[in-house]
Amino acid sequence: MAKIHNFSAGPSILPQEVFQEASQAVLDFNGTGLSLLEMSHRSKEFVAVMDEARALVKEIYNLSDDYEVMFLQGGASLGFLISAYNLQGANKKGAYISTGAWASKALKEGKWVGEAVEVATSKPENYNHIPKNYVVGSDVDYLHYTSNNTIFGTQFHNVPEVNVPLVCDMSSDIFCRELDTSKFDLIYAGAQKNMGPAGATLYIAKKSLIGNSSANIPTMLNLKTHADKESMFNTPPVFAVYVSMLVLRWIKKTGLKQIGIMNKAKADLLYGEIDRNTMFKGTAAEEDRSIMNACFVLNDGLDESLTTSFLDMCKTANISGLKGHRDVGGFRASMYNALPLDSVQALVDVMKAFEIKYA
Amino acid sequence: MAKIHNFSAGPSILPQEVFQEASQAVLDFNGTGLSLLEMSHRSKEFVAVMDEARALVKEIYNLSDDYEVMFLQGGASLGFLISAYNLQGANKKGAYISTGAWASKALKEGKWVGEAVEVATSKPENYNHIPKNYVVGSDVDYLHYTSNNTIFGTQFHNVPEVNVPLVCDMSSDIFCRELDTSKFDLIYAGAQKNMGPAGATLYIAKKSLIGNSSANIPTMLNLKTHADKESMFNTPPVFAVYVSMLVLRWIKKTGLKQIGIMNKAKADLLYGEIDRNTMFKGTAAEEDRSIMNACFVLNDGLDESLTTSFLDMCKTANISGLKGHRDVGGFRASMYNALPLDSVQALVDVMKAFEIKYA
Repeated sequence: MAKIHNFSAGPSILPQEVFQEASQAVLDFNGTGLSLLEMSHRSKEFVAVMDEARALVKEIYNLSDDYEVMFLQGGASLGFLISAYNLQGANKKGAYISTGAWASKALKEGKWVGEAVEVATSKPENYNHIPKNYVVGSDVDYLHYTSNNTIFGTQFHNVPEVNVPLVCDMSSDIFCRELDTSKFDLIYAGAQKNMGPAGATLYIAKKSLIGNSSANIPTMLNLKTHADKESMFNTPPVFAVYVSMLVLRWIKKTGLKQIGIMNKAKADLLYGEIDRNTMFKGTAAEEDRSIMNACFVLNDGLDESLTTSFLDMCKTANISGLKGHRDVGGFRASMYNALPLDSVQALVDVMKAFEIKYA
Repeated sequence: MAKIHNFSAGPSILPQEVFQEASQAVLDFNGTGLSLLEMSHRSKEFVAVMDEARALVKEIYNLSDDYEVMFLQGGASLGFLISAYNLQGANKKGAYISTGAWASKALKEGKWVGEAVEVATSKPENYNHIPKNYVVGSDVDYLHYTSNNTIFGTQFHNVPEVNVPLVCDMSSDIFCRELDTSKFDLIYAGAQKNMGPAGATLYIAKKSLIGNSSANIPTMLNLKTHADKESMFNTPPVFAVYVSMLVLRWIKKTGLKQIGIMNKAKADLLYGEIDRNTMFKGTAAEEDRSIMNACFVLNDGLDESLTTSFLDMCKTANISGLKGHRDVGGFRASMYNALPLDSVQALVDVMKAFEIKYA
């Protein structure tokens, strides 16, 4: 079968070698004679997997012992609630930057826990940029932001400089490049873009915040519950954690610096073509363009029916997952860590052929 | 490699044919050229999986259109909170039967949401039986119970007859035999015993209760959120749902009636040997013995060192997962749906050999 160029926005492409190992583990895990799917999460074999996954996160991100790493469930959608609960302090008030659909959902859950204020938003411009000038008062317990916006193709290229604890939903760009993690009090991320399959959610929390919320938190939403039990308070999502561990091994082997270089090369190649090609235009402000998700549409004045023509040409070239989100339209190319430069080149080739055919 | 007899308490044995199919799906899902782990949950291929999984639950359990089936995350531990939130009515009070560790945790979360009263408990007898005589007043919104207790090896063999909505954590005995599901308002169950791998949690809810709680519920804990989006409000645990669907196909093919017959045959074989063998005694009241988890210990007066001797003999016979939970000690044989009768016979053979050697 011809190779598929997988531009899916998530769940999304993972390293091919991971699929081989994961497939084998479903049949027989490490020569135990048992499938990983039928093994106790308390077995020494799986405890070793969980420990290695957590250790790899610490190593890859240079996390000091001031941080706790956890693998939980529920995705970022439950993380909105968990972050608001666990970060609540004396002010019972959080600040949020609204840069898209997910950031807005985080704000909504923040309001469920306490007061939550929107200190900046790019909604009036359909979230086509990252707000720059905003003020975060000292009367809030934390600032929450979403580092990358899959739907709108924007990304924070600098960590907000504030004097309050910083919380970030990093679901769609975690491990995409080097990062000064010491600036964060809490990072959370659904696994299903750069880190693994759907079903596991990573939490990186400063130990000093764990158990120090002013809120009365239900057991499963309290990070202290999970930190105290090393992510084994209840049965973890065994297979999703295992595959995440395999991906983390690949990230470590490749190196975060190199991954950042490759992601920039892929983004430069694609955005270069979007800007050069007379048939397309990008939708996000240039300085805020995401290196993970490139959103583009047909250039002004072109017949809308060409959208289907282009998607058909992509399909013929084995390029999948390119249809844009309904909130932006057009096209979206998601270029997560495991996507090879070759796949971006294949897309660029189709864009050029499309221009020659229809310009 | 010799076959392992997998008596693990959970995650636990699943049908062998499921491992083959699941392993293949990790490499190439249904000839798409993509791994199931890298496919969008919104792809038509995965939407078909989710739809089939939900439909199979309805079919296997003869559920009327009055019920909604959902696959979520978080395990029963999050289900404790979700059930209490969604069942809360005008009384803001739930009734709980405490039959073990998990039932007690459900009660604890119930108290977080509203008032929660314990109408019966077998704790003074270390949960060795199911309480029979209890009164559930009409001033509660629901009765919650745990149908099977993995740690203590007890099981409700009759559904409680009450005049209030009935909620059940069925994590460790769902689909173990035929069941009159029309008696329930809400059933929830972590997948990782009879239904699939860890990471998916099943909810079967009467539609009339969904969205009618008196509580103000956070988005992700509100069953209405998930019912309205057919379990696709956020990214579901794709692989765990897929494997659950494969197991549900196997359950349908085998038939719930036949599964119940086989489970009873396995339990009869093992309990018969526990009662006959002079080296062992069961820990649970006979009438409440679980057909899923059989707990037994060395008979009175025997040297405790024989525990290790017996476990060593089990290991030699490729019997795994037999060590009892620390709260009961001794031995626990979990005989979930996919465990063959042959495995129980292998265990019984070791018990007989143990008696001959050490009696």
